[in-house]
Amino acid sequence: MSVCINTNAQNVHPIAFATKGDIEFIKTHIKTNPLLKESYDDIKKSVDEWVDKDVDVPFPKDPAGGYTHDKHKANYTLMFNSGMMYQLTNDVRYAKLVKQIFLKYAALNPILKNHPQATSSSPGRIFWQALNDANWLVYAGLAFDCIHDYLTPQERKQITDGAFKPEVDFFTVDLKSWFNLIHNHAVWACAGVGIVGIATDNKDYVDMALYGANKDKKAGFIAHLDGLFSPDGYYTEGPYYVRYALLPLYTFANSLNNAKPELKIFQYRNSILKKALGGAMQQTNLNGGFFSYNDALKEKTFVSNEIVNAINIACQVYGSNMAYLSVAKAQGRVTLSRGGASIAKQLLTTKNIPSFYPYKTIEFADGAKGDKGGVSVLRSGKDKNLTTLIYKYTSHGLSHGHYDKLNINLYDNGNEILEDYGAVRYINIEQKWGGRYLKETNSYAQQTIAHNTIVVDEKSHYGAKENVSENHNAFKFFGEINDSIKVVCAKDTTANSNTALQRSIYMLSLNNSTKPIIVDFFRAISPTLHQYDLPFHYLGTFISSNFKYNSYLKNQGVLGATNGYQHLWKEADADKLPQLSQVTLLNNGTFYTISSATDDSTKVFFARVGADDPNFNLRHDPAFIYRKKGTNQFFFNIIEPHGNFDAVAEVSTNAYSSINKMEVLLNNEKYSVISFYHKERKITIAQSNNDNRKEILHSININDKLIEWKGPYTIIFK
Amino acid sequence: MSVCINTNAQNVHPIAFATKGDIEFIKTHIKTNPLLKESYDDIKKSVDEWVDKDVDVPFPKDPAGGYTHDKHKANYTLMFNSGMMYQLTNDVRYAKLVKQIFLKYAALNPILKNHPQATSSSPGRIFWQALNDANWLVYAGLAFDCIHDYLTPQERKQITDGAFKPEVDFFTVDLKSWFNLIHNHAVWACAGVGIVGIATDNKDYVDMALYGANKDKKAGFIAHLDGLFSPDGYYTEGPYYVRYALLPLYTFANSLNNAKPELKIFQYRNSILKKALGGAMQQTNLNGGFFSYNDALKEKTFVSNEIVNAINIACQVYGSNMAYLSVAKAQGRVTLSRGGASIAKQLLTTKNIPSFYPYKTIEFADGAKGDKGGVSVLRSGKDKNLTTLIYKYTSHGLSHGHYDKLNINLYDNGNEILEDYGAVRYINIEQKWGGRYLKETNSYAQQTIAHNTIVVDEKSHYGAKENVSENHNAFKFFGEINDSIKVVCAKDTTANSNTALQRSIYMLSLNNSTKPIIVDFFRAISPTLHQYDLPFHYLGTFISSNFKYNSYLKNQGVLGATNGYQHLWKEADADKLPQLSQVTLLNNGTFYTISSATDDSTKVFFARVGADDPNFNLRHDPAFIYRKKGTNQFFFNIIEPHGNFDAVAEVSTNAYSSINKMEVLLNNEKYSVISFYHKERKITIAQSNNDNRKEILHSININDKLIEWKGPYTIIFK
Repeated sequence: MSVCINTNAQNVHPIAFATKGDIEFIKTHIKTNPLLKESYDDIKKSVDEWVDKDVDVPFPKDPAGGYTHDKHKANYTLMFNSGMMYQLTNDVRYAKLVKQIFLKYAALNPILKNHPQATSSSPGRIFWQALNDANWLVYAGLAFDCIHDYLTPQERKQITDGAFKPEVDFFTVDLKSWFNLIHNHAVWACAGVGIVGIATDNKDYVDMALYGANKDKKAGFIAHLDGLFSPDGYYTEGPYYVRYALLPLYTFANSLNNAKPELKIFQYRNSILKKALGGAMQQTNLNGGFFSYNDALKEKTFVSNEIVNAINIACQVYGSNMAYLSVAKAQGRVTLSRGGASIAKQLLTTKNIPSFYPYKTIEFADGAKGDKGGVSVLRSGKDKNLTTLIYKYTSHGLSHGHYDKLNINLYDNGNEILEDYGAVRYINIEQKWGGRYLKETNSYAQQTIAHNTIVVDEKSHYGAKENVSENHNAFKFFGEINDSIKVVCAKDTTANSNTALQRSIYMLSLNNSTKPIIVDFFRAISPTLHQYDLPFHYLGTFISSNFKYNSYLKNQGVLGATNGYQHLWKEADADKLPQLSQVTLLNNGTFYTISSATDDSTKVFFARVGADDPNFNLRHDPAFIYRKKGTNQFFFNIIEPHGNFDAVAEVSTNAYSSINKMEVLLNNEKYSVISFYHKERKITIAQSNNDNRKEILHSININDKLIEWKGPYTIIFK
Repeated sequence: MSVCINTNAQNVHPIAFATKGDIEFIKTHIKTNPLLKESYDDIKKSVDEWVDKDVDVPFPKDPAGGYTHDKHKANYTLMFNSGMMYQLTNDVRYAKLVKQIFLKYAALNPILKNHPQATSSSPGRIFWQALNDANWLVYAGLAFDCIHDYLTPQERKQITDGAFKPEVDFFTVDLKSWFNLIHNHAVWACAGVGIVGIATDNKDYVDMALYGANKDKKAGFIAHLDGLFSPDGYYTEGPYYVRYALLPLYTFANSLNNAKPELKIFQYRNSILKKALGGAMQQTNLNGGFFSYNDALKEKTFVSNEIVNAINIACQVYGSNMAYLSVAKAQGRVTLSRGGASIAKQLLTTKNIPSFYPYKTIEFADGAKGDKGGVSVLRSGKDKNLTTLIYKYTSHGLSHGHYDKLNINLYDNGNEILEDYGAVRYINIEQKWGGRYLKETNSYAQQTIAHNTIVVDEKSHYGAKENVSENHNAFKFFGEINDSIKVVCAKDTTANSNTALQRSIYMLSLNNSTKPIIVDFFRAISPTLHQYDLPFHYLGTFISSNFKYNSYLKNQGVLGATNGYQHLWKEADADKLPQLSQVTLLNNGTFYTISSATDDSTKVFFARVGADDPNFNLRHDPAFIYRKKGTNQFFFNIIEPHGNFDAVAEVSTNAYSSINKMEVLLNNEKYSVISFYHKERKITIAQSNNDNRKEILHSININDKLIEWKGPYTIIFK
């Protein structure tokens, strides 16, 4: 591959992270802008500790969290930062520091075999997994670019051949099929190879990065922009992973924009990178925490480096706006880039930057063509009083997807109320299996029972087989969004053999002064007998139920043997439920009642995560689970935030539910009709189950009363 | 009793909450001070909603959280606030509102019997417990005082005889023995009767309030100031309850200071009320949360009304200072009082008010004479990096005490790390048994096993009998506090039959850049065989242990049958422990390792609160418990905060303990000597167990090496 090098056009360096012009712009602003100066000082201080010192480049040994892992991670950050310091100060000691480290890698990398802690099918060499080696390539490439002109041609060759080529060859030859995947790991790999290509003036590397190891456009960066996102910017792995992908996506795109402006990469596919960032931001909670569906760690927020970098570049290439600035304000730091300098200035001079991102109700289609289901984010309320209901009817979401068709999650006032467990992982804590995904991710968190959706016969959707699940998706059947009513009805016909699922979510704002209620009806449709479990995984304190239950006081066992059930302790259960079952919770000062139409054949289990957990990896979160048996079954629930409890003032208001008399008036192939009372007000909802056309007239007779409406549903307030 | 009324000197009203002069002062400042104006506007708005409206005074029926309870509570607040609005605006509609409500109470109160929900030995009439009736008296008294001059003599008599007299008679005759207790409830009762006395010019009431129902000085407010506090201001019920007592204490004292300045009540007993407030503030966590020992609810902080009121009055009578202002700043609101107006102004004009109260290492003696043991609050670090170890060797603490002799708790960085469970109660949430203390308070939270101290033979201290426990206390044996070393050694000889306990806590700052370590040695001394359990109740995530254990994966049972053990699930256990056992936890980004000298006869249990809990009242907090059996036993533990985990940046540093080679070199009646390594540094501690004199020379031979020192202990760093 190296035969091409000499034919390459030489770039003017630096060009990968910042151009000469950018550097001058940043230098000017550092002098006058305290926030930029602070970010600069932080970085300078961290680098100055190492100037003129010998930096260890250890032989790889440890998993994540261990010394060699953390050292190599620290090294690539140091190399990049020191490279930037060289550019911003012209002090050659910084360039020398980078060179010295590079020369050690040039000696080390050619002799590396697969990492001794490698466990995955894509092993790393410097690190336990190739993904981390790709991280190294990205930052090392940026660092090389910074000191390119400081190095002699001989030194450049030594580093290019010794430090970079073994890694690039490893990726594009040994791990070729991994490099050519459409997947977030491969995004990093392409960005790494591409940035090294730009930094070392290697067209061959850049072409492989853009178009795949075979340069056939079936893989590579452009294929990622085409294949990883739906037309409206939804990333199929979900918000936790789009965050991670945005770092190589934006960083490499920025390098390309400098080195190959003719690509117009930021405008590619109707500015898909802009949509990707906006979509990621809309999929956060008030504190910037990414929605926790799929494999997600809940601590992760948009103040992370990845989003600082993306917002800073986006402000530069797409123009600044209050939405970006609201995030930048929460981040409180900027990158040493033209965009970062610009944002630092705007944060000082712009008045009334909002405290929260401009969250709105939004729906994303999934799939490159937007035809693989999607996710609806229904919102009501403002600022810290925001209520957010997430309804997920997507495709699988690559290797980090869960078996959670028609799952819902609820956030309210910035708190997670009905939760998705996320993933079981303590990232970068070595004691927890080197910071890797723990086995309970698969045995519990990904299983259907860990979600707020129906489990048929205690089996996860698609038998928890990724190679089956990835071929299917749920789909939206009808929907409507307006100020007072937000409706989404979706169906799934593939997750369970012999059973179809249909769930309708109605978020209703009954008046302006209170929170919305969420009416949830969930149909399980099957010609044969099944057991249906519908869990509510909640966060908060159990306050009361309106039915009696039997508690396991001195001994408790598990809810089931497998498919995630083995991780749930059975704390209590009840059968022969009343016609209306209510459970009230308290979470951070707000009450939540879940009211359910039940009967004497419905069972309920109170469960708690944490069984079969020898390493104490699981959180002990509670859930209750309604169980019905039969052929077709109907779950009708209302989720109702209400009232307030102020623990300091010792005052509780509206501590009781306003919902009563829930009735299922009709449920068949053609129609579902329910009614309930909110205080004294009767509300009836009728929907068509098999015709989603807006112009069709429906007419049915319920208890000798005629209900007529046009379109897929109607809501009658009395 | 009413025969005295006509002989009373008439006060100039208002005088109870504020004088005429105060009112003018407040009026002036409302115009110019936005914070005072805000507090004023909030109150005015809440009152304006009711002006010219008919306010319900329902016949008492419900427990706490129910309608009639909350309504009467709202009524007394409204009456006081409306009375103040009358004073501040001269608008008679406010006075009329108060009068109308009073007239309803004047009709209601004479016909009341004990409340139908009364369950305690001090039943209420308007409310389920007399304590709440006392609250009513305090606020109604203040309200009456505000509208005193608006009322006709006839109206005054009607209200005095109808609304007040039945309540005062009920307290001082029917509940005389309760009224005459030295207890926080009686503080409220005295304040209520006394304030009504001042408001209605009834000397008899004031005298009973000051000196007890028999006016013999064995009870009443002065006896409370003498008996409830130690000489340094420690309140025997603990910080959660001193908060509550400070409202009637400061409010009544303020009224007395206006009406009977010759009492010099704020200077009484070396300004005991000032010490009480300062002691309460020192017993808070960084967020102002009161330490959770004894019956405490963890949500309660110093932004509560009680402390706003106390700080505002204290600033007025004792003079303002940065400590008070730091609390006032966190409170963000003031009372409509001279002190409140003054603070509001200072908050605007004072620069550099600290973000945290000036926390320091402090020791409180317990008991009116300071001879009933005490509590040591050992602190290290600054601002948000504060580490606080609480070591409790007090007397029982009246009816809200726990059986927790020699208990420790740890807070760090504002987080609770080794916890006291507090009380089991959802105050004012009606669904949770009317907001009362739940039975698990007694069956679990008060029991010894719920604490971080030794349980002998699975029995709680004093057999969990309050009438036994209240006759005893632990005591400090020796101690020393300086910048680098803080040592407290205390003993208990009464909590367990046939077994004495001695615990020494050494908080050592090994260098300036890291957190202190806490060396804990705990001797159980008995001539006969016993089982000793030492729990560590922690908050956080279990990260790792250095020993193997057996997990109960599919079934779990309880740790024991009674004395709180029945509420602990047994999640895992191990026996034959190594010589050094280590458990590492993670709490909000800091690691904590507890290292313990163990051996192959030591057992450990991993437990979790939540068994035998049919109403889901308990939090599911984790613990691990070391168990040793024998005659004399020695528990040697080191609690070590270390390192950092940043979940957003995905970086962990110093995730492993620096402690190793813990050895017990000697433990007998005369001496305990231990050694351990912190990294490469050997540290040896020798202490005298039976001689606490500072001037005595000790000399012992350990492994052929002579250790000589003067005083009760020595620490040798190598």
